[in-house]
Amino acid sequence: MKIQKIDHICFAVKNLEETKRVYKDDFGLDPTVEYVAQSEKIKVARYCIGDVAVEFLQATDPDGEVAKFITKRGEGFFLISYKVDDLEKALAELKAKDIQLIDDHPRRLFGSRYAFIHHPSKLGGILTELLDGDFDVEKEGE
Amino acid sequence: MKIQKIDHICFAVKNLEETKRVYKDDFGLDPTVEYVAQSEKIKVARYCIGDVAVEFLQATDPDGEVAKFITKRGEGFFLISYKVDDLEKALAELKAKDIQLIDDHPRRLFGSRYAFIHHPSKLGGILTELLDGDFDVEKEGE
Repeated sequence: MKIQKIDHICFAVKNLEETKRVYKDDFGLDPTVEYVAQSEKIKVARYCIGDVAVEFLQATDPDGEVAKFITKRGEGFFLISYKVDDLEKALAELKAKDIQLIDDHPRRLFGSRYAFIHHPSKLGGILTELLDGDFDVEKEGE
Repeated sequence: MKIQKIDHICFAVKNLEETKRVYKDDFGLDPTVEYVAQSEKIKVARYCIGDVAVEFLQATDPDGEVAKFITKRGEGFFLISYKVDDLEKALAELKAKDIQLIDDHPRRLFGSRYAFIHHPSKLGGILTELLDGDFDVEKEGE
């Protein structure tokens, strides 16, 4: 497996509008794009800064993972996503090493494929995602 | 102020050796560099991935900020650091907008200058740092 770069990092927040206001007031930054991911039950403000994206996630449904995360742990860091050259190969490699995965098969969103590794149990709650493909909300539907 | 890129993100961990083992086993990654920052009372494993660094911090003193953070909040995300073109100007700009800073003047470490913004109070515990200069543990002492 070759980790190419950090693709994005995500923070769970209760109030996306307030977060956007802070980023605008403090840094003069507007989201590069905003989108809703129905499958993940979130709405997202995505800031592409350099070649990495910072995403703020607000839950759209109390049954979603982000809503549950905030209830359990409060607002804050949600995940770090590393871009790999080939996600299927990376997952197969991790499975062969008996590394615990949350997703055996990739999820898909807007042209990217991603899967979660069960790092929270061994890395102090740091959820890690592997991803490949090119995320683009304009190019391809959810 | 112009935010150029994410310079690095930091995670506080209790056991740096265990974290290094996980990153080696799962991703085949060794730290790009390891260093001790006496002023911050931490030892650090720094992974340069793409053009962003991921740092894992272990406290070296129970009086340090990282030790206090772990006692209060547990292991996990500690801060995100944005690189700006000119830190002094960025801080002056934030002060002029009455934005609350933790550091009025830059701290210095290995060729970089950095300062913390008081975002945790308004961004759900997300500590944000601004930085300029070129961090290099080889080139310049702490």
